[in-house]
Amino acid sequence: MPLLFRRPLSTLAKPRTVFSGIQPTGIPHLGNYLGALSNWVKLQNENPNDRLIFSVVGWHALTLPQNPKELATSRRDMLAVLLAVGLDPKRSIIFHQDSNAMHTELAWILGCITPTGKLRRMTSWKTRLAQSRNANSESEVDESLLNAGLLTYPVLQAADILLYRATHVPVGEDQRQHLELSRDIADTFNRTFKKPLFPLPTSLITPAKRILSLKDPTSKMSKSAPDASSRILLTDPPSLIASKIRGAVTDSITTGIAYDSVARPGTSNLLAILAAIEDVEIESVARRCAEANMSHADLKREVTERVDALFEKPRAEFERIRGDPGYLEQVAKEGAEKAREISAVTMEQVRQRVGLA
Amino acid sequence: MPLLFRRPLSTLAKPRTVFSGIQPTGIPHLGNYLGALSNWVKLQNENPNDRLIFSVVGWHALTLPQNPKELATSRRDMLAVLLAVGLDPKRSIIFHQDSNAMHTELAWILGCITPTGKLRRMTSWKTRLAQSRNANSESEVDESLLNAGLLTYPVLQAADILLYRATHVPVGEDQRQHLELSRDIADTFNRTFKKPLFPLPTSLITPAKRILSLKDPTSKMSKSAPDASSRILLTDPPSLIASKIRGAVTDSITTGIAYDSVARPGTSNLLAILAAIEDVEIESVARRCAEANMSHADLKREVTERVDALFEKPRAEFERIRGDPGYLEQVAKEGAEKAREISAVTMEQVRQRVGLA
Repeated sequence: MPLLFRRPLSTLAKPRTVFSGIQPTGIPHLGNYLGALSNWVKLQNENPNDRLIFSVVGWHALTLPQNPKELATSRRDMLAVLLAVGLDPKRSIIFHQDSNAMHTELAWILGCITPTGKLRRMTSWKTRLAQSRNANSESEVDESLLNAGLLTYPVLQAADILLYRATHVPVGEDQRQHLELSRDIADTFNRTFKKPLFPLPTSLITPAKRILSLKDPTSKMSKSAPDASSRILLTDPPSLIASKIRGAVTDSITTGIAYDSVARPGTSNLLAILAAIEDVEIESVARRCAEANMSHADLKREVTERVDALFEKPRAEFERIRGDPGYLEQVAKEGAEKAREISAVTMEQVRQRVGLA
Repeated sequence: MPLLFRRPLSTLAKPRTVFSGIQPTGIPHLGNYLGALSNWVKLQNENPNDRLIFSVVGWHALTLPQNPKELATSRRDMLAVLLAVGLDPKRSIIFHQDSNAMHTELAWILGCITPTGKLRRMTSWKTRLAQSRNANSESEVDESLLNAGLLTYPVLQAADILLYRATHVPVGEDQRQHLELSRDIADTFNRTFKKPLFPLPTSLITPAKRILSLKDPTSKMSKSAPDASSRILLTDPPSLIASKIRGAVTDSITTGIAYDSVARPGTSNLLAILAAIEDVEIESVARRCAEANMSHADLKREVTERVDALFEKPRAEFERIRGDPGYLEQVAKEGAEKAREISAVTMEQVRQRVGLA
């Protein structure tokens, strides 16, 4: 069967295309790092056949009011962060979403086959609007304030993914509804325009690493929480990391360390941080700490050391890369070119199918 | 005052920038020609200092379901029509909206400052949805069918205009609400991002030339009316023009021709057509016909002759240009380049203001 042999092997094993994006809204914190960024680096280092596409999604940031100067800084900084944590622009495509207008082009086209009813049912805009208004609950949010960008955000997100015909998307729990919509939109497009074009993207399940606030361990560590000591930033110097962890809420139980996310959320959160850094089960960390008869202070000391060690290199790298704007610009330029090259192929197909070619 | 004299005169008189778009949904009819296209040509020929930008707006067509093959043909045909009626690509910028992705880019950004409440209050989407569903009234329309594209259509339209910092937009009565929204969005952008960027576009009032259906002279001549003999297309051969006008609904009043849009809508519509073609007041046409003791048949004969003469050259030109796809492609390419050149300057300013640069 000579014909079969003339086909390169690589086309037989289907390589995956992974897409993910991060908003340029401030320096990432420990939760962002352990929940998303470290997984991206892992993907890069463990899956040599995957096509990996990572984007700083500036257009999404505009769906809530931003300070333009801060946004411009955050946008550059976030690219520096991606490089600092270990993403390699020679291996992965790293770019600014807003330097590839095909994202908005495809979003427009997909918006024309997406009922507004489906978008209104998304819970994310309510949460985001509530956060931005400091409302206590989603029901307090005045829907008339909803701007078109916030409503159609999930359509742009679908475009981000489908533009590269991504097959896999690393998503957190809070993004599942969006990925479901992306699949739905891809399927509607394929059926409406007959010749299927888009693979239905599936979620890349990564072990849930929910890092909680150091000050209120019943809610997630968050960029926007008013108390800055509730989160550790990737750029925090060791002294600041130490003081934030020293000030972390634990509990008054003195019978030793144990994991109990309901009765001892603060202590459990510190254990979860250790487990995530070591990439092991929380229970095994808890056992080790209990066997070592650790106090809360001991535990905090160990967490401080681990976070310190974890962020030492990225922090230094970030400062180095940030100080080299020429390099950053070069990476952004080359990343955008690669992104556009792939998306142009998709858009040619899209235009033909919808009748705009 | 030597300084004043060193300033070229052209910067003293402020040149206008005029933008207008037309959807690629079939060959234009007499109503489109007299109501829009002929005005564009007039603008071009009478205002040498204006910057004129005319666009075939393919992305707007997608807001209602289209047959992709027909859309692709209509898209090319509409460009040929613009040239055939006398728009000169050396004088005016003529291009396909969908070949300049900055339209969707700006639309995304403007959508982020446009409340959905304002968009829901636009009446146009209800009308369009009702038409597309053959519903008898807007209240019959099921709002859950509203797609995001149809809801945000006026935002893309604002982007079309503001991308070229257009100062004037020729609009029909049915587009006034949209232009008002464009002004509103421009103003919001200018105030939100401090340094004003967009002029508030004003409508170019053109004498109302409402051409009605030949079969139901109480409603506008329409592309989508089921009875094709209710409209005259720019490409109709003389024999078809003659038979359509012969079949036009008039009235049974035999006391001579007179203008009375309520009691004699069909006859009045024929007079309106004559007046629009001659570019004179309807009353003066009516007087002339009455003085000449015309019958309905006489009137129809004159309308036929006039429409024949009006469309003779555009029809021939259309066939000629359509048969030269290389030329059409060249015009489209050059038009898109000119459009992108202007819009790139705007977008650089936009990106800086919002913080994505």
